[in-house]
Amino acid sequence: MHTGDFYDYFDLLEDDEKKIVLRVREFMNQEVAPIADEAWTTARFPHQLIPKLAELDIAGLPYRGARSLLTGFVVLEMNRVDPSMGTFFGVHNGLAMGSIARLGSDEQQERWLPPMSDLTKIGAFALTEPKGGSDVAAGLRTTARRDGDSWVLNGAKRWIGNATFADLIVVWAKEETDGQVKGFVVEKGTPGFTATRIENKIALRTVQNADITLTGCRVPDANRLPGARTFRDTAAILRQTRGGVAWQAVGCMMGAYERALSYAKEREQFGRPVAGFQLVQDLLVRMLGNVTCSLGMVVRLAQLQDQGVYKDEHSAMAKAFCTARMREAVGWGREIMGGNGIVLDYGMGRFVADSEAIYSYEGTREINTLIVGRAITGLGAFV
Amino acid sequence: MHTGDFYDYFDLLEDDEKKIVLRVREFMNQEVAPIADEAWTTARFPHQLIPKLAELDIAGLPYRGARSLLTGFVVLEMNRVDPSMGTFFGVHNGLAMGSIARLGSDEQQERWLPPMSDLTKIGAFALTEPKGGSDVAAGLRTTARRDGDSWVLNGAKRWIGNATFADLIVVWAKEETDGQVKGFVVEKGTPGFTATRIENKIALRTVQNADITLTGCRVPDANRLPGARTFRDTAAILRQTRGGVAWQAVGCMMGAYERALSYAKEREQFGRPVAGFQLVQDLLVRMLGNVTCSLGMVVRLAQLQDQGVYKDEHSAMAKAFCTARMREAVGWGREIMGGNGIVLDYGMGRFVADSEAIYSYEGTREINTLIVGRAITGLGAFV
Amino acid sequence: MHTGDFYDYFDLLEDDEKKIVLRVREFMNQEVAPIADEAWTTARFPHQLIPKLAELDIAGLPYRGARSLLTGFVVLEMNRVDPSMGTFFGVHNGLAMGSIARLGSDEQQERWLPPMSDLTKIGAFALTEPKGGSDVAAGLRTTARRDGDSWVLNGAKRWIGNATFADLIVVWAKEETDGQVKGFVVEKGTPGFTATRIENKIALRTVQNADITLTGCRVPDANRLPGARTFRDTAAILRQTRGGVAWQAVGCMMGAYERALSYAKEREQFGRPVAGFQLVQDLLVRMLGNVTCSLGMVVRLAQLQDQGVYKDEHSAMAKAFCTARMREAVGWGREIMGGNGIVLDYGMGRFVADSEAIYSYEGTREINTLIVGRAITGLGAFV
Amino acid sequence: MHTGDFYDYFDLLEDDEKKIVLRVREFMNQEVAPIADEAWTTARFPHQLIPKLAELDIAGLPYRGARSLLTGFVVLEMNRVDPSMGTFFGVHNGLAMGSIARLGSDEQQERWLPPMSDLTKIGAFALTEPKGGSDVAAGLRTTARRDGDSWVLNGAKRWIGNATFADLIVVWAKEETDGQVKGFVVEKGTPGFTATRIENKIALRTVQNADITLTGCRVPDANRLPGARTFRDTAAILRQTRGGVAWQAVGCMMGAYERALSYAKEREQFGRPVAGFQLVQDLLVRMLGNVTCSLGMVVRLAQLQDQGVYKDEHSAMAKAFCTARMREAVGWGREIMGGNGIVLDYGMGRFVADSEAIYSYEGTREINTLIVGRAITGLGAFV
Repeated sequence: MHTGDFYDYFDLLEDDEKKIVLRVREFMNQEVAPIADEAWTTARFPHQLIPKLAELDIAGLPYRGARSLLTGFVVLEMNRVDPSMGTFFGVHNGLAMGSIARLGSDEQQERWLPPMSDLTKIGAFALTEPKGGSDVAAGLRTTARRDGDSWVLNGAKRWIGNATFADLIVVWAKEETDGQVKGFVVEKGTPGFTATRIENKIALRTVQNADITLTGCRVPDANRLPGARTFRDTAAILRQTRGGVAWQAVGCMMGAYERALSYAKEREQFGRPVAGFQLVQDLLVRMLGNVTCSLGMVVRLAQLQDQGVYKDEHSAMAKAFCTARMREAVGWGREIMGGNGIVLDYGMGRFVADSEAIYSYEGTREINTLIVGRAITGLGAFV
Repeated sequence: MHTGDFYDYFDLLEDDEKKIVLRVREFMNQEVAPIADEAWTTARFPHQLIPKLAELDIAGLPYRGARSLLTGFVVLEMNRVDPSMGTFFGVHNGLAMGSIARLGSDEQQERWLPPMSDLTKIGAFALTEPKGGSDVAAGLRTTARRDGDSWVLNGAKRWIGNATFADLIVVWAKEETDGQVKGFVVEKGTPGFTATRIENKIALRTVQNADITLTGCRVPDANRLPGARTFRDTAAILRQTRGGVAWQAVGCMMGAYERALSYAKEREQFGRPVAGFQLVQDLLVRMLGNVTCSLGMVVRLAQLQDQGVYKDEHSAMAKAFCTARMREAVGWGREIMGGNGIVLDYGMGRFVADSEAIYSYEGTREINTLIVGRAITGLGAFV
Repeated sequence: MHTGDFYDYFDLLEDDEKKIVLRVREFMNQEVAPIADEAWTTARFPHQLIPKLAELDIAGLPYRGARSLLTGFVVLEMNRVDPSMGTFFGVHNGLAMGSIARLGSDEQQERWLPPMSDLTKIGAFALTEPKGGSDVAAGLRTTARRDGDSWVLNGAKRWIGNATFADLIVVWAKEETDGQVKGFVVEKGTPGFTATRIENKIALRTVQNADITLTGCRVPDANRLPGARTFRDTAAILRQTRGGVAWQAVGCMMGAYERALSYAKEREQFGRPVAGFQLVQDLLVRMLGNVTCSLGMVVRLAQLQDQGVYKDEHSAMAKAFCTARMREAVGWGREIMGGNGIVLDYGMGRFVADSEAIYSYEGTREINTLIVGRAITGLGAFV
Repeated sequence: MHTGDFYDYFDLLEDDEKKIVLRVREFMNQEVAPIADEAWTTARFPHQLIPKLAELDIAGLPYRGARSLLTGFVVLEMNRVDPSMGTFFGVHNGLAMGSIARLGSDEQQERWLPPMSDLTKIGAFALTEPKGGSDVAAGLRTTARRDGDSWVLNGAKRWIGNATFADLIVVWAKEETDGQVKGFVVEKGTPGFTATRIENKIALRTVQNADITLTGCRVPDANRLPGARTFRDTAAILRQTRGGVAWQAVGCMMGAYERALSYAKEREQFGRPVAGFQLVQDLLVRMLGNVTCSLGMVVRLAQLQDQGVYKDEHSAMAKAFCTARMREAVGWGREIMGGNGIVLDYGMGRFVADSEAIYSYEGTREINTLIVGRAITGLGAFV
């Protein structure tokens, strides 16, 4: 396994699971690594890689009985090379497919999951709004109004990954009559739906985020996810995907660690590799400590998921904790590289930048802290 | 399990293992908790508890086939209530019995392990010297000289836990002829051996540490541990016990977390429990994050131990990482309690103080960092 | 000046001010340093030093026109050697004398300040209550009821420094009729006043803190401080003394730094002074950075005080920031000393322990943060 | 003054100094702020602003008798809005003009300083090499060989700011015969000098850094700086400019603080401004603490400079400490903004990215730590 897997957690996978992970690793190394910096710099998504990604047959794995441990390691491998690609996949596979798989009817699952599994249809997930980040439930302003056999959506969404090109966008809106949050699949090209690319990003530049406006956007009732009855159902999706983001964080910091280690062994100062200096070893070992403890945490989280005893606060803890450790770790990695850490060429620059986005999305550290805080104290401190 | 076991690691134990852990917990709660503060304040070791501790039949568990996971949880339980008692036990069970069990001859094991298992003989472990802390191998100055059928030991040791009353002290000394470090069991009362209690401690005050002098101290060759041929053999003991110290750290911070949580739920300010304030939840969740990630790390370490793939750098990482997390966590716990955190009565004061000792013993953070650093870079940076 | 005054702030004092500071330094080094550990261990206050302390003529300096910069450096010197003595003096000089000097009538000042200046009468300050720490204003439960020419006080106070032996205790109580907080000087021996020593402290053990009960405790109206009309007046005292605590923190960490530096230059490992290792220099330089930036902050605070443009939030910032830096710094100092840092003998143990108390008293980090937060945002977030 | 100048350090300036600072502020707000994001995104230097910058008449201020306190505040103002512009100016004014002003002959100063003061000639400073960052002295590989009345330079430089368009490049090279480091002014267009722009930067993207190659590059002896006799003279320049970088860090974090504060007061969640939440106030106050203590440190540094008692270790401390505080502070600022912190539009993104470069240039935290460490311990720990 990787040098960053210091306690050999990879070994907990079954042999056939390992094969899947190794295929993903090969794809990331061979196909993504060579183009990742260019894609990031130009802020263009590498659509040409989709067919090869589809061949890996990993989209939808969680909904075909795969263990969370396996799907976690898949996430780790992607983010270890490119958090942008990892985020694209997380939005498609975790958020969009997850919503349909867990909250969709049998008919909807049959209609949408197969093309999403083979990546001929790409998903997005539109929950966050311009005015609402942490206050996503009560503050939701997008509305859904029943009108005969269809629903009319009005409102605005922000930060929606993949939305500039996605075929299926899961949109969350509050029903005007009962005030409950419900989920709708909006298909590309639906009148009243527009997605405007967000420019000037300093992180995850390859990911195409959009500001969405919904103006009298009409979707058939057949596109409403019947399992999404209240925000509680939305939260159940986030519970899963927050675990995924924790795995992303582990992948991102493991990638940063491995690059920092390689660099430190090759870069010479004062006539010898900087890896031999105490101050550099200190940074490397701190990085590795963060990687190791975080990987342990997500592995355990996956076990709790697979046992079905997994609660919101478990994933909130992992998300908050692992992304905070990631942010420290990539900072140390950048520090080891000195000036060479602020260019993309040495493989560290993207991790430094991207970790800022991962740190904040799917619930900031603050909001996830308060979710755990409520669980352990019995007292909500959100407002 | 405890509220501090957020990811339910206790569940990984088998039923009969759980019973042992629960017996230890009961002992700690019923027998140790009521007297721990008084013992700490007066710096007196509670010898009266030894018989009841013996009834638990936990001394020597690792050498009777118990899984490292079980022995780890036993350590956790002890330190969760009283790190002084945990340290006493770690010295006796891990360092002293461990040396005899792993490096002693069959005859020595039969002679010493049974009375040590039933705590009728207490052990100590004399490695550290006044001039040598981190530089314990090359810097060892205590000498052993063969003289007929016995060995003559000369030198000084420092910080030796239990040594004021121990029956069997494992002493490490450098053979004058070959310069190799060897181990000897010095029995209480041996002429030339004196142990002077170290006073004025601010941490682990219940533990009786001593400065030892060895002046022509003669031990029979039958007391030399034949498995201890070089410092490498000593290091093999430390590899095991460093893992134990990491478990101690987890116990210590879990105890601190649970007390902080209880306090925060009861202490009111501005008309409501402080547990409902964001700044307090932030501290509690940071504490719990540290407990959870560290417990995950030592659980994995125990698995590696039980698989026999465990290396020096694995336990060095756990020791350095978990004790650093503990130190942060108990500090936050103290902060939550305000002034009440600086008296023993609220159950936090001892953890704050004791964590300083645990942080530094059995290898400082620096030295354990450099052990890991050497393993990952291939470059020693000790000097 | 001290090695810990890296940017030579001492040089900002006038020559006659320097002489006063140097006299204090000499007193601390010659009289206090030799007995400080013993006093701390036995938790006995060294009353025998009071006459020599009085000779320094520093009590009441702020009320005789001394610059805040001078009084700050005096505080620094005391705490650099012994935070317990520094706290004793802070309670007497800052809190008790400060209340009388700023809120007392001319008659009261003439009656009490001279004997307090020559330390023949010692002061205490009773504000904190068992149920109220951070919520000191609204939560105050001690009551004052006017009864003819006297007042009857009822209630309880906690953590009151010097109170076991003080001659004059400034007690804060809420007038039953108007609900406003007022201040009263209770003289030793007044019926209804009892002070019970708080035992089992792990920090500032030399300081005698007490739990106070006031049961129908009657004081003449002539002992009411007329300037104390509402809690706002109490807060004005705290504004001053919080600045003093920030100076205490600087003294404490400077003392810790200087001891750590000396130790590191003498302690050898691997054949050379540990001060020559990168990891030790890192800790020393971090310590010195904290000392230097904190000293700069309190010097500026003193300038603002002397210009009269000093607000609550200025001292709250200094208190919160400098005590947090102190806590980090003494922790690093302890780390440098390894095991020798957990005994008093090497001069570090007391700083480690004492810094915990200084960190929390006169407003926790949390409460001072929220005081600054309210000032900069215009929004109170206390509840 | 700014909301970020919590202790009103601006007030230490004289009135005419304040006017200069206010002019710079106006220029930054009116001219630079509107174009800074676009310049950063496109990585193009805004040459069109040079004439207006020249009108401020601030280039060369330090060499015309201005106090360090004034020049420090000028640096702060520039970086408070745009660290790229601040870096451009630091290279030109501090490094390039500084070398000529301090080490050049009278003739050289007369020849070059006037056009540099009015920005008709722009300077660069070429010290760092591809293989040498921290080990800049002993590791210098660029050579200078005397050949008649001229010198022949050979070697390579890296990270040289402004070098793609600079008119005068101060190049440091080791004389082949005596092995001493000497300084030469290479004029634009000199044969054998080529500068290749460094692409793919994630920080300070507006600054044009170059890889330089010197291949038989011949410069007249009249372009050799006679005051640059050994690396000690180069170090004297760095001592000054490191102080300048510390001021940059203060400006950068002050800008980040002010934007975070404004954002927090306007951004609403759960129906009220996020500035009213404890967790947000905590981050704001931590930021402000870092700004305040760092500003205090550079102000004191300026005083030491103006008194002429300023040593290498003083500026090394300020550089290491203030840039570390900056890095923390901008991270907290980004955290407050959530996702909006990763786009340029909200004014935080550039600070987050740029601070990484400032943290490492002109001596990493490690190397500056070791410079201080050597000064305080008397022991060099560089190798």
